[in-house]
Amino acid sequence: MTTRQDCLALDAADPLAPLREHFDLPDDLIYLDGNSLGVLPRATPARVQQVVREEWGRDLIQSWNTAGWIDLPQRVGDKIARLIGAGAGEAVAADSTSVNLYKVLMAASHIARQDQPARRVIVSERSNFPTDLYIAESLARELGWTLRLIEPEEVEAALTHDVAVLMLTHVNYRTGRMHDMAAVTRAAHAAGALVVWDLAHSAGAVPVDLRGADADFAVGCGYKYLNGGPGAPAFVWAHPRHADRFWQPLAGWMGHAAPFRFTPDYQPAPGIARYLCGTPAVIAMSALDCGVDTVLAAEPLGGMAALREKSIALTTLFADLVEARCAEHGISVVSPREAALRGSQVCLARAEGAYAIVQALIARRVVGDFRAGDAQTPDILRFGFTPLYTRHVDVWDAVEQLVQVMASGEWREARFHQRAAVT
Amino acid sequence: MTTRQDCLALDAADPLAPLREHFDLPDDLIYLDGNSLGVLPRATPARVQQVVREEWGRDLIQSWNTAGWIDLPQRVGDKIARLIGAGAGEAVAADSTSVNLYKVLMAASHIARQDQPARRVIVSERSNFPTDLYIAESLARELGWTLRLIEPEEVEAALTHDVAVLMLTHVNYRTGRMHDMAAVTRAAHAAGALVVWDLAHSAGAVPVDLRGADADFAVGCGYKYLNGGPGAPAFVWAHPRHADRFWQPLAGWMGHAAPFRFTPDYQPAPGIARYLCGTPAVIAMSALDCGVDTVLAAEPLGGMAALREKSIALTTLFADLVEARCAEHGISVVSPREAALRGSQVCLARAEGAYAIVQALIARRVVGDFRAGDAQTPDILRFGFTPLYTRHVDVWDAVEQLVQVMASGEWREARFHQRAAVT
Repeated sequence: MTTRQDCLALDAADPLAPLREHFDLPDDLIYLDGNSLGVLPRATPARVQQVVREEWGRDLIQSWNTAGWIDLPQRVGDKIARLIGAGAGEAVAADSTSVNLYKVLMAASHIARQDQPARRVIVSERSNFPTDLYIAESLARELGWTLRLIEPEEVEAALTHDVAVLMLTHVNYRTGRMHDMAAVTRAAHAAGALVVWDLAHSAGAVPVDLRGADADFAVGCGYKYLNGGPGAPAFVWAHPRHADRFWQPLAGWMGHAAPFRFTPDYQPAPGIARYLCGTPAVIAMSALDCGVDTVLAAEPLGGMAALREKSIALTTLFADLVEARCAEHGISVVSPREAALRGSQVCLARAEGAYAIVQALIARRVVGDFRAGDAQTPDILRFGFTPLYTRHVDVWDAVEQLVQVMASGEWREARFHQRAAVT
Repeated sequence: MTTRQDCLALDAADPLAPLREHFDLPDDLIYLDGNSLGVLPRATPARVQQVVREEWGRDLIQSWNTAGWIDLPQRVGDKIARLIGAGAGEAVAADSTSVNLYKVLMAASHIARQDQPARRVIVSERSNFPTDLYIAESLARELGWTLRLIEPEEVEAALTHDVAVLMLTHVNYRTGRMHDMAAVTRAAHAAGALVVWDLAHSAGAVPVDLRGADADFAVGCGYKYLNGGPGAPAFVWAHPRHADRFWQPLAGWMGHAAPFRFTPDYQPAPGIARYLCGTPAVIAMSALDCGVDTVLAAEPLGGMAALREKSIALTTLFADLVEARCAEHGISVVSPREAALRGSQVCLARAEGAYAIVQALIARRVVGDFRAGDAQTPDILRFGFTPLYTRHVDVWDAVEQLVQVMASGEWREARFHQRAAVT
């Protein structure tokens, strides 16, 4: 079995190890929650201060021109495009994932209504991230459509003649299960449906090739693997064949062809810029820009392919060690063991105590998170492995701490069972 | 006529003068563009650094609980409520003004469709801020409704039996003309229409009493008179009689009754919280919080009533001085001269050269902005007077610089005619 010494040797030989230097991570912390909130890049505080003190405080409105505030959404979008297999000019950073999902679902529904009006169903997974389902449910209500929820293995069978849009999250937020984007998109297109991908747990975590998969629309999150900070702006992508076909309904002035001409009638900008709405969140988007840079810093070292290789090594090691050392404590791995089916996270389950075990680990400075189960699914302990800053030795130490939490029985202490507002 | 000495005496006697100390304003600058982008509060850089370095960098996800990130939208919303005549729990800070306008227009349209289905018209002003018109136009397209644009003096006559929603900006962004919110709302209700107010140029600038006026919905901007920073989150308010009646369609997880229960079906939170959508923009919203505090700092000094009194003094002084000293240079005041009809800004016009004159003033460190006219309206020079940090002597000096720009003819220099991307 892999020893701690082996892990140190793997880290010493890791060509991606220098990327950790781009982050300001507390020394004593093993942070396995970058799939919830990425850590602070070292460059961010100074950049944010510059934006606040100089661009805003000193230069005020002229920074729209001199600091390039006006095309920040495009510049950050172009950087993100490099991580998701999209071209320059095809993505923008804007709003939240939920808001962007509304835009692209509306666009997809309009295209479907024009091209195939008999199709009035959106298909998604019951275990999709809830906000995706809420937005789709809401839009279905508005349009008089149906939202049909299925299990992940039912996707192909669900692509019936009435399906207008298949909306999936590439990597499931609870289980870490990853869809084969190219195969699913191909099947959906063969069945006559458009595909909307949520890349919240993919962008910056696993290779994504939207153009290669011939996807239709995508949205994603800025504050997870892109390290953009809490509540960072999200991003939105539309395949160029669709981008100009439809006004998305959040037709704010920043999506206008000439926002500063102040004409009373809307003329959508060409391409993805029409997916912008209000004034860009300059401070937040500057932080996101620094976060995206931390992922782009991997490009000379092999980019997303190299990050994926390390991610698989880390998640495989974690799953192996947990199975070898924690099975006796009733802990099992619920994420797929086949690497190709797994994103950059590993989820564990235990018949009881999942919440308290996560809290006890946090008290030992190993940060994962808890996601409650329901009638069908167990409570889970969720661990994300960001290959930019997570080391092999962190994986080993995290499992060691988990073993100690279980062996000592300390997770049974009352203090670890008190639920916080946000869990 | 008022002299510079008089202005210095007015400033010395001004009980609101200490409020200027809350801002970090370049010494040599006369900033009359707080209606476009408010200046940097002195407290903001440290607060933003604390959020970035400590709450995010050090404490990471636990800050959702320990730093109260999760209810930032409500806490900032409650502060804003104090400035707009709303109660605690009635407003939230979220998203952009454009996105929030979509939410409330959708809500208003649903209420109208339930209560008075024959009404299918949204009325607004042709000179409303374009993004408001674009959002309304888009929504009208979605619903098969009509957007009817009128002139400000035609409001009452336009309230015909088919009007579902009257959507107005309280203070016009170009002319500074202010509607009588109570009277217009009364007239709209008498005619059976709901009223949506955009407070972009009102909140923090003029007294607003949404409950007193019995308004239905309101949205507003965080980066103008609330000093929240470039692209700051906006705010949204719904009268409690409406808040629970309808799901707004941007039904993201933060508007769910129990966001962290991760249930697949949407249960809207009670009250205004259902107008939240995605994850709050924590860094940006913390900056907005500091900005709102600068306005609340006036509360012990008389609050919005005292700020309004000073605002009227400043705008009246500016208009008087311009009329006395600049008429000979072909410059006229286009904002209403009656104070009750005017927000906290004064707009000027000249048959030619408005853009270049604004540029020449900026070169002299007097910052206003330019707004292009059209077939019906002239190009304008726009000046906002934020009573929190603008002094009487600034008004005098700004007019003196304008006189010099005109008398010297320097505005004719080619360099002042080069158009920037954002004007």
